Amino acid sequence: MPCITLLTDFGTQDAYVAQMKGQIVSICPAVELIDVTHAVPPQDVAAGAFLLAQAVPYFPASTLHLAIVDPGVGTERRMIAAEVITRLVADEPGHLQRIVLPDNGLISLLIEQHELVGANYLTNQAFWRAGVSHTFHGRDIMGPVVAHWANGAQRADFGPACSAPARLMNSGPEFAGKSVDGQAIFVDRFGNVITNIRREQLNTWPTEGAMVNVEIDNGPALLLPMVDTYGQRQVGDLVLLIGSHGYLELARVGGNAAEHVGVANQMKLRFTVG
Amino acid sequence: MPCITLLTDFGTQDAYVAQMKGQIVSICPAVELIDVTHAVPPQDVAAGAFLLAQAVPYFPASTLHLAIVDPGVGTERRMIAAEVITRLVADEPGHLQRIVLPDNGLISLLIEQHELVGANYLTNQAFWRAGVSHTFHGRDIMGPVVAHWANGAQRADFGPACSAPARLMNSGPEFAGKSVDGQAIFVDRFGNVITNIRREQLNTWPTEGAMVNVEIDNGPALLLPMVDTYGQRQVGDLVLLIGSHGYLELARVGGNAAEHVGVANQMKLRFTVG
Amino acid sequence: MPCITLLTDFGTQDAYVAQMKGQIVSICPAVELIDVTHAVPPQDVAAGAFLLAQAVPYFPASTLHLAIVDPGVGTERRMIAAEVITRLVADEPGHLQRIVLPDNGLISLLIEQHELVGANYLTNQAFWRAGVSHTFHGRDIMGPVVAHWANGAQRADFGPACSAPARLMNSGPEFAGKSVDGQAIFVDRFGNVITNIRREQLNTWPTEGAMVNVEIDNGPALLLPMVDTYGQRQVGDLVLLIGSHGYLELARVGGNAAEHVGVANQMKLRFTVG
Repeated sequence: MPCITLLTDFGTQDAYVAQMKGQIVSICPAVELIDVTHAVPPQDVAAGAFLLAQAVPYFPASTLHLAIVDPGVGTERRMIAAEVITRLVADEPGHLQRIVLPDNGLISLLIEQHELVGANYLTNQAFWRAGVSHTFHGRDIMGPVVAHWANGAQRADFGPACSAPARLMNSGPEFAGKSVDGQAIFVDRFGNVITNIRREQLNTWPTEGAMVNVEIDNGPALLLPMVDTYGQRQVGDLVLLIGSHGYLELARVGGNAAEHVGVANQMKLRFTVG
Repeated sequence: MPCITLLTDFGTQDAYVAQMKGQIVSICPAVELIDVTHAVPPQDVAAGAFLLAQAVPYFPASTLHLAIVDPGVGTERRMIAAEVITRLVADEPGHLQRIVLPDNGLISLLIEQHELVGANYLTNQAFWRAGVSHTFHGRDIMGPVVAHWANGAQRADFGPACSAPARLMNSGPEFAGKSVDGQAIFVDRFGNVITNIRREQLNTWPTEGAMVNVEIDNGPALLLPMVDTYGQRQVGDLVLLIGSHGYLELARVGGNAAEHVGVANQMKLRFTVG
Repeated sequence: MPCITLLTDFGTQDAYVAQMKGQIVSICPAVELIDVTHAVPPQDVAAGAFLLAQAVPYFPASTLHLAIVDPGVGTERRMIAAEVITRLVADEPGHLQRIVLPDNGLISLLIEQHELVGANYLTNQAFWRAGVSHTFHGRDIMGPVVAHWANGAQRADFGPACSAPARLMNSGPEFAGKSVDGQAIFVDRFGNVITNIRREQLNTWPTEGAMVNVEIDNGPALLLPMVDTYGQRQVGDLVLLIGSHGYLELARVGGNAAEHVGVANQMKLRFTVG
């Protein structure tokens, strides 16, 4: 039974997700549908790109993924079907993931961290919903395409090759001496502030117990300890750690760091070690 | 594997949906459950009727649907099992949909737009949850009935025929000269304001590019352009268009029209063409 | 096809639930995943315990359940796999339920009301996610364990026996003469206030129609009627009833009792009959 995951900014209070699922099971009845999330902040492609890169590599080989955060729907932006080999551990053989999404940078973080095999534009209307105008591309084009893919269609059937999927502008961290300038890229439900600084970029970073100076949007500084797990400090303490997603993160033990410190998505953060 | 969709106002922070699903898979283990939404505004039968009519026709023939928005639970209101033939395109053969729901008007919009085959009241306790008082009709009566229906029971087994399911009062748009008086029936997650004016009622409506005068609850008027897609205007522009659901809709490109203009569900809207 | 239910405080706007589901289907592809809820108030073990006890008994025998509300992750708290026989009706044979969760009291209310068969700690790393540090125990330990259990592993394989799972402090109601002192343990989506007073503790309680004096946190008193169903009173009326979950509950017909009266979770409530 093929498995299709779904990631959108549609929310779940409307019927949009249901319409899309209805069209998918109309084409491919024996499918397992798994919701990644439908709560991407509306039209926030960068947040969607973060969540997609977080979710996809944890699924088994041959999983299909449908991802839609699409502020450009109705414009000339194109849609693609892409294949990516993901590896959670460097020396593992890798899992082939199949993804259908708008070509607007939503795939950026996934293909920065993993291996793009190839992509094709969705232009072959034989795989679209039949006999109707196509105003809702998730339901009418991308949903049907991913369902046909699950049924055995090949990527090359969907349209011409796309040699380079669109990417978001790179906003990686910048290192200078004992400081690194990063950015908040996501605030999770617990108020943990995830930065764009990855574990493997921190080879010279201090280990557990060291103190780090943190400046937020050039405001007053905080002196915070690096820890390995939340449990090493008391409830209410602010800490820095490498979260389970592999990024440097600002957290508050048993509380909400984003609210407590006043950090929002996209804010700049400078970290300086002693 | 039969497929049952679920639409309720139960929310997902309680255990109500899980209890209902647990009873369904207890009766029919090999079922695919698809959530339409559990975020219908509490006890808002009209909003539930809109969402049900939006979701059901996109599912394949023989899908089962359980829909519960039920402010009258515990009163004399009855429950029904209904069969409806839906067509998304006028000349297609149609899909037989099977729906279990309270007989309180929740089925109204679906059977206004599609063909009711028949309905039966749920009175035969052989299909109810056994050996208990029945205080939660979704879990104890309607859930078990839809599961038995998925298992092969017939509609007529559930109770006597219902010749005319209850309907909500009709609040269709009124046309007068160059004006039409409509109403906001749903505000979606993106702040798009969906009216009760359907595409096929707008034969004489101006085409793309025309300007339309919009009065909201007899307040000050806005002059807005008709467009085919959001992408035809700049971010921040207010526009009118026929949405993917087939209704006239007020939207803001890249933004939230309902908040920007101050329109809420049920407000009156008058549209006048030049 | 085995069925695994999921109850967490992860929310659905992050990728945490998806990562966990991805690891589960990587180990056990032919599984049906049913979300109980991911909206337990963050780190509120008591609310999670209430919801778990509400959901589990409605599932068929041999269902697996993964429940994670885990403020102590990263500390010395342990994790367990437990088997519980649930009975919704006293004389039924009972259903064997299998549950994986942190040993922090989350199982308390379920095993107070049902029969604990046994539990084992999760120490055998052969059933954990391979080759990685384990920073997210839901994805890396408890998710893999429940998936291996679904695949046929035995409870005793996971680690040494746990003779007594941790329990939350008992805060049952106290009876004195014509009064009972209870507590709000959960406020549902409709604003119904659920207390910790169970139906079977109310043998001498007045029946339908009687008036009950209700004091909230030692504040001013309300005189409210006991009813059997919401429909017996007018919209806007406050009532007391035994809800479908078997607990005494304060409700407002067609409205939100918690907001109207100003009751929040954990508040004390004294009920006195005339």
